[in-house]
Amino acid sequence: MAQGPVGTARTPGRGASRDTLLAAASAIMREGDTIDVSLAEIGRRAGFNTALVSYYFGSKNGLLLALLERNLGYALDQLDGLLRMDLSPSQKMSLHIGGIIRLFFDYPYTQRLTMRVIADCDDAAAGDIADRFLRPMATAHEVIIRDGVAAGEFKPVDPRFFYFLVVGACDQIFSQRSVMRLVHGFELDDETRRQYADQIRATILTGLLA
Amino acid sequence: MAQGPVGTARTPGRGASRDTLLAAASAIMREGDTIDVSLAEIGRRAGFNTALVSYYFGSKNGLLLALLERNLGYALDQLDGLLRMDLSPSQKMSLHIGGIIRLFFDYPYTQRLTMRVIADCDDAAAGDIADRFLRPMATAHEVIIRDGVAAGEFKPVDPRFFYFLVVGACDQIFSQRSVMRLVHGFELDDETRRQYADQIRATILTGLLA
Repeated sequence: MAQGPVGTARTPGRGASRDTLLAAASAIMREGDTIDVSLAEIGRRAGFNTALVSYYFGSKNGLLLALLERNLGYALDQLDGLLRMDLSPSQKMSLHIGGIIRLFFDYPYTQRLTMRVIADCDDAAAGDIADRFLRPMATAHEVIIRDGVAAGEFKPVDPRFFYFLVVGACDQIFSQRSVMRLVHGFELDDETRRQYADQIRATILTGLLA
Repeated sequence: MAQGPVGTARTPGRGASRDTLLAAASAIMREGDTIDVSLAEIGRRAGFNTALVSYYFGSKNGLLLALLERNLGYALDQLDGLLRMDLSPSQKMSLHIGGIIRLFFDYPYTQRLTMRVIADCDDAAAGDIADRFLRPMATAHEVIIRDGVAAGEFKPVDPRFFYFLVVGACDQIFSQRSVMRLVHGFELDDETRRQYADQIRATILTGLLA
């Protein structure tokens, strides 16, 4: 990145700096299997001083929210596109489950981050975050299940409960990396991630079928 | 509880005091939907001073481990009994899923507590905790799935992946109480807990069937 005109250590463009800091925060969370990281750690990893991190994100909460936006934005666009595709409800659900697992594989701290951001804001802001980042998935489940039942493909299930079943089933392996290692003796790589996705998809879809 | 002989505020029997403190810790975690509680808060709730809490449990980690032992001890005994019962693999799995959901309903912070206790100890202690509290369930899944496949009831699935599927599906609704309220507009009571258990059980068991 370019040196600043007045010779300060780093004064790259605002957008690029934000991206670099978010990538650093994400890498620390992924490697350390934690969302407890300080602005100082993030700054160190990115080669920025802590004041600059505060300048870009206002606060730790601001940074966590920006990271959530970055990670979920793409996934929500994909989900929106999926709903518009000319596929059967079973095909849509199958692709959706694969998409969630890929999201959690890339950002295994996603669920913990979401809960932390919601817990750290007031009720109005929590409602807004839930509407932006969580409600689209709940709505997608309602639509796909309703269409699947209408097409005779799916059993009628309560989409509210289905939400927790599918998110929990997809997330747990990523929230419990230590259990995977201590009890089951394996680490997730691209191969086991694929096998996991296949089994989750097969179990849940078969369980949904009429 | 009885006054102590020297007139101190409370000096009940050691066992009863431990139980009272664990019940207080559990109630605070359940109500606050958190595992971040201080020894001072727990003491206040139980009517004990903080020094006495330290005396009984040594440290915060000691108290968290004792709470895990209290909550999981009964569930693991139940699981052991279930494996010895004269039931089909499908019946055993069905009862097991209901048992996990009941455990998480009573102690919705169980998964977070387990992960915290494991994260806060060294590798040897973490291995020991995993062996005592988590491996029995992994082994139960292996046995029930193996028997179910042999009996022609179940598809052959990888029990390691099944562990995360079933734990995640059962736990998620209890780990995300704010999402239940903000996105789905309901709270868990005994009735919704039963409906949730029925749907999870039906979906996972149908998904397992050969």
